Amino acid sequence: MAVIYLDHAASSWPKPPKVMEAMVQSIEQFGANPGRGSHEMAVKASRVLFEGRKSLAKLFKIKNPNDIAFTLNTTMSLNMAIKGFVKPGEHVICTAVEHNSVRRPLEYLKRTRDIKVTYIETNPKGELTIDDVARAVTSETKLIVCTHSSNMLGSILPVAEIGQLCRDKGIKLLVDAAQTAGTLPIDVGLMGIHMLAFPGHKALLGPQGTGGLYIHPDIDLEPLMHGGTGSQSEAIEQPTVRPDRYEAGTPNTVGIAGLTEGVKFVLQEGVEQIHLKEWALTQRMMEGLMGVTGVTVLGPDLGQNKTGIVSFTIADADSSEVAFVLDQSFQIAVRAGYHCTPLAHEMAGTMARGAVRASVGYFTTEAEVEQLIHAVREIAAHYT
Amino acid sequence: MAVIYLDHAASSWPKPPKVMEAMVQSIEQFGANPGRGSHEMAVKASRVLFEGRKSLAKLFKIKNPNDIAFTLNTTMSLNMAIKGFVKPGEHVICTAVEHNSVRRPLEYLKRTRDIKVTYIETNPKGELTIDDVARAVTSETKLIVCTHSSNMLGSILPVAEIGQLCRDKGIKLLVDAAQTAGTLPIDVGLMGIHMLAFPGHKALLGPQGTGGLYIHPDIDLEPLMHGGTGSQSEAIEQPTVRPDRYEAGTPNTVGIAGLTEGVKFVLQEGVEQIHLKEWALTQRMMEGLMGVTGVTVLGPDLGQNKTGIVSFTIADADSSEVAFVLDQSFQIAVRAGYHCTPLAHEMAGTMARGAVRASVGYFTTEAEVEQLIHAVREIAAHYT
Repeated sequence: MAVIYLDHAASSWPKPPKVMEAMVQSIEQFGANPGRGSHEMAVKASRVLFEGRKSLAKLFKIKNPNDIAFTLNTTMSLNMAIKGFVKPGEHVICTAVEHNSVRRPLEYLKRTRDIKVTYIETNPKGELTIDDVARAVTSETKLIVCTHSSNMLGSILPVAEIGQLCRDKGIKLLVDAAQTAGTLPIDVGLMGIHMLAFPGHKALLGPQGTGGLYIHPDIDLEPLMHGGTGSQSEAIEQPTVRPDRYEAGTPNTVGIAGLTEGVKFVLQEGVEQIHLKEWALTQRMMEGLMGVTGVTVLGPDLGQNKTGIVSFTIADADSSEVAFVLDQSFQIAVRAGYHCTPLAHEMAGTMARGAVRASVGYFTTEAEVEQLIHAVREIAAHYT
Repeated sequence: MAVIYLDHAASSWPKPPKVMEAMVQSIEQFGANPGRGSHEMAVKASRVLFEGRKSLAKLFKIKNPNDIAFTLNTTMSLNMAIKGFVKPGEHVICTAVEHNSVRRPLEYLKRTRDIKVTYIETNPKGELTIDDVARAVTSETKLIVCTHSSNMLGSILPVAEIGQLCRDKGIKLLVDAAQTAGTLPIDVGLMGIHMLAFPGHKALLGPQGTGGLYIHPDIDLEPLMHGGTGSQSEAIEQPTVRPDRYEAGTPNTVGIAGLTEGVKFVLQEGVEQIHLKEWALTQRMMEGLMGVTGVTVLGPDLGQNKTGIVSFTIADADSSEVAFVLDQSFQIAVRAGYHCTPLAHEMAGTMARGAVRASVGYFTTEAEVEQLIHAVREIAAHYT
């Protein structure tokens, strides 16, 4: 089955061969628990984690690799950041294009800690300005949570400007880099990012089961998980030393070994180059789809900066039906529905039938994009 | 480097070859997000998770596989169970031989939810009776948390009897199966277990980065993580449908593919047989070590039932020093120190210098046990 995989915004596939090689080596040569034994295999496992942290620190311009904690996925990173940071009664600002992994923890804290949350609306293309954000700030605002790019519309949010605003106002900034880690340059210092949540299995080209959270040294979070760390075993409280404080339990060493190779691949290719390549592919995809009768392309206009996501609708067709036909009749994998971001669909006006999301990755080819356009043209003919 | 790996209580190594094969297949053939797209690869990924759940349900005699949630590790499972279940002011009973992954969440809830915790002491061998537990029960007791086996002493706790007590008193039972999932028979219904936390990377022979929590259908936990599930995207609250409710974010599909093969291996070999094999190895190890001048073997007496763990001290030697020499001069991997269970060391009287823990697994051979005994004899000669 020759699959055309256009679901990179969910998980990238395929991975660079070294990712799998590193995982095989890890599982064959050292199954041990890092940091929990002095023996050779445990030391090797610790080295894998440190290598991973170092590569990620290089990518995101983080000074101290130990300020990065590994997690299961971005959702865990965001839960750790939000629940660990926000105190009862505080005010939090986020955008209407956040993923449910931001919205649901915030709604949970509204219910349990009586926090206040402002969702800043975007335009139908998923864009907002720094003025929109500034207007929402109150004297109670402690945190702004902002996705770097909408996972449905591909719009890029002005994170660096928000970071400057946060600096001016003494607010902390948490950025959800689910769609941008590995595809857009991120410099946590320059952009004023205090916490950065990122996945390992998307544009960083690592395996599923990996992700991370950068935590600025000035910020102390109540850990999401309390437990064994291999350090300060005799203390009743979670150790304060990083990254142990935020990594209770056995980490996914084999996954992180793979992720490290993914990050090294990204560093070698260069994030700017990857972005340019993906941008060119989305431009061609948008252009092609906009030429199909009945198709509406969502998100930023042609020529605007954006990430590798192109969502669209076909007349009044149900998005799931379109995705199903693309899969079954054309072997093209896309994603339909609400993409865990219902407010973004409200902004875009697609709450009724959802949207079809095609997303490109490093290994996507122009020919694959053309095949999608061709398939959509055939499908749209039935609906118009 | 021919390593004699006797640190199975931390992580098992090596794994059955099919574990790695399944992981390679998973990463090469379908990198997609399960349950989040209708396309073929996403369906395959969903099938991997369901296969895993089915195998685990068979192993633990769980009626509905969807009552099992996959996690990053046992620590996450225990945090999910404890923090999701215990309400302000409630009374919880646990034992003095619990791992820090039980103790630290409980101590956190003492601080934040004003809960009361009773730690039941064991004898120096890590054993307790059902009467010890019964005496601790009050009218406020809502939960008993009990490890199935001490991760330091290898003693087996009377989980089924505690389960009966819980049934009689209307208390819920959470069992930490970190050391027994895959090495001791577990039947959640028969044993009266309401929640079972287990690792994937120990005796279930899967990779690190995997674990799970069984949650009895009558129990509703506040999820540890709120976020996207691919179901009910438009709801503000976490969905109630299982396992989605407890699995926000992208799961570790590649790891679970491996774990499933590990569990199938265990099912095929038979847990009873695995236990008998490991028990025989520990008996020989204990016997041999007890014959070495200066060595004190901790935990249950020779001939008693126990898991694959043998902890010991050599005269007044520091345990870390002993482990270091075993690693460097004999290529034997063991674990020294406090094993994240300081109260167990208090019980055993080893708080001063910790203990050396040797733990066997499915692939451990008699020859390896003899080599450990031989090495300890050489080392002990220096200290006595």
